Amino acid sequence: MALHHVYVSDLSAFSQAQAIDISGDEAHHAVRVKRLEVGDVLTLVDGKGRTLEGPISGVTKDRRTDGWRITIDASAGIRSVARPASILTVFAAAPKGDRLDEMIDGLSQVGVAKWHPLLSKRSVVDPRPTKLDRLQRVALESMKQCGRAWVLEIGEPVAITRVPMGRDTVVADGSGGPFTPGSIPSSGPSSLLIGPEGGLAPEELAALRAAGCVVLAFGPHIMRVETAAVVAAAFVTARG
Amino acid sequence: MALHHVYVSDLSAFSQAQAIDISGDEAHHAVRVKRLEVGDVLTLVDGKGRTLEGPISGVTKDRRTDGWRITIDASAGIRSVARPASILTVFAAAPKGDRLDEMIDGLSQVGVAKWHPLLSKRSVVDPRPTKLDRLQRVALESMKQCGRAWVLEIGEPVAITRVPMGRDTVVADGSGGPFTPGSIPSSGPSSLLIGPEGGLAPEELAALRAAGCVVLAFGPHIMRVETAAVVAAAFVTARG
Repeated sequence: MALHHVYVSDLSAFSQAQAIDISGDEAHHAVRVKRLEVGDVLTLVDGKGRTLEGPISGVTKDRRTDGWRITIDASAGIRSVARPASILTVFAAAPKGDRLDEMIDGLSQVGVAKWHPLLSKRSVVDPRPTKLDRLQRVALESMKQCGRAWVLEIGEPVAITRVPMGRDTVVADGSGGPFTPGSIPSSGPSSLLIGPEGGLAPEELAALRAAGCVVLAFGPHIMRVETAAVVAAAFVTARG
Repeated sequence: MALHHVYVSDLSAFSQAQAIDISGDEAHHAVRVKRLEVGDVLTLVDGKGRTLEGPISGVTKDRRTDGWRITIDASAGIRSVARPASILTVFAAAPKGDRLDEMIDGLSQVGVAKWHPLLSKRSVVDPRPTKLDRLQRVALESMKQCGRAWVLEIGEPVAITRVPMGRDTVVADGSGGPFTPGSIPSSGPSSLLIGPEGGLAPEELAALRAAGCVVLAFGPHIMRVETAAVVAAAFVTARG
């Protein structure tokens, strides 16, 4: 089993620290849900490539706030993990409700660097800024679960006409030829575009093809947006 | 957009029919949710490879049951779709709650033929027969959405020691080498095994390796069971 992961917003602030105090939800979860105790080792991660592994040296209750506080022995020092060499940005229409959370969690697990909500003719959901903030929390939780050191970034909504064009952009669409390893650049594409539930409009697809994007199908059946995004991203990043 | 799909339990019973009546939930959904009318074309599918496409010739309300009934013109005849040549059976531990439904929906979308709940040392969920019946409904709904002619079968729970062994069985586990197209039989493996949330026990993994199974990792990070199952199945079926 992987060590329990705790999110800290910026580990670089603790580069000289001998001990790091954690309070709030993360401390509550570690003490009350995971039942961690003094001596248990955990991993701190800040989503910007920095991690620190160390044992819990203290568990106390803050009298003022009545919340838990855990202290981590920081003597092992902060470790820096380089950003992965192949970085994939996914432009995908936001599906409705819980399926958007599922998609973010899935994209995080398969190693996508950044997601932008795609705005196209048939997109029905245009996530508001408050929603995007909440999704960043989903990405942080997913990062802890799956052991990433870099968090999946939640980007701004992008209109389909503003997506990067050319050979480095793969479009997942049932009208394309079947994916084979030879069908994408060997360096790995940098952008992946997935249309909304109702599909890309014919004129949108024509414009993407005209601009040199590689249109590929990633399976024999019609996939939901969140399944198509995660499966296509997994195929494409496996090339990196 | 694909035509609306309606599930009929056995289309072979209508091989001589000129018209087919549909009632119950499927009729209600077509009339009230999809707002289909006389003249609209839809697809009937029975999950056993038989489909029939035809226009609605009548929409009536049954006075006795107060439910909707639609009549489909069956003159186009029943079409038979052969079972896909490469058939993949997935043995995966059941994740908790809604995530099991998500997994079934995802496995259906990527073209898996059959799923068995896997019972292993660290499996926590052993789905009851009533649950498995409900999952067959999830698979039927997914079949309609994704345009399959053969429904994903929901199998009985299988102990890890009873899973088929050998080169035709791929085990998705982080301890394996990275997946490459050359790492699996070119005919496509017939079984895929995914361990539970806590992972396979070391002795289980050792037994699978000793029996000749191919252990592979399908991504750089730790994946939830339902993500691992869908992504690994997509990779493996892409070979077929």
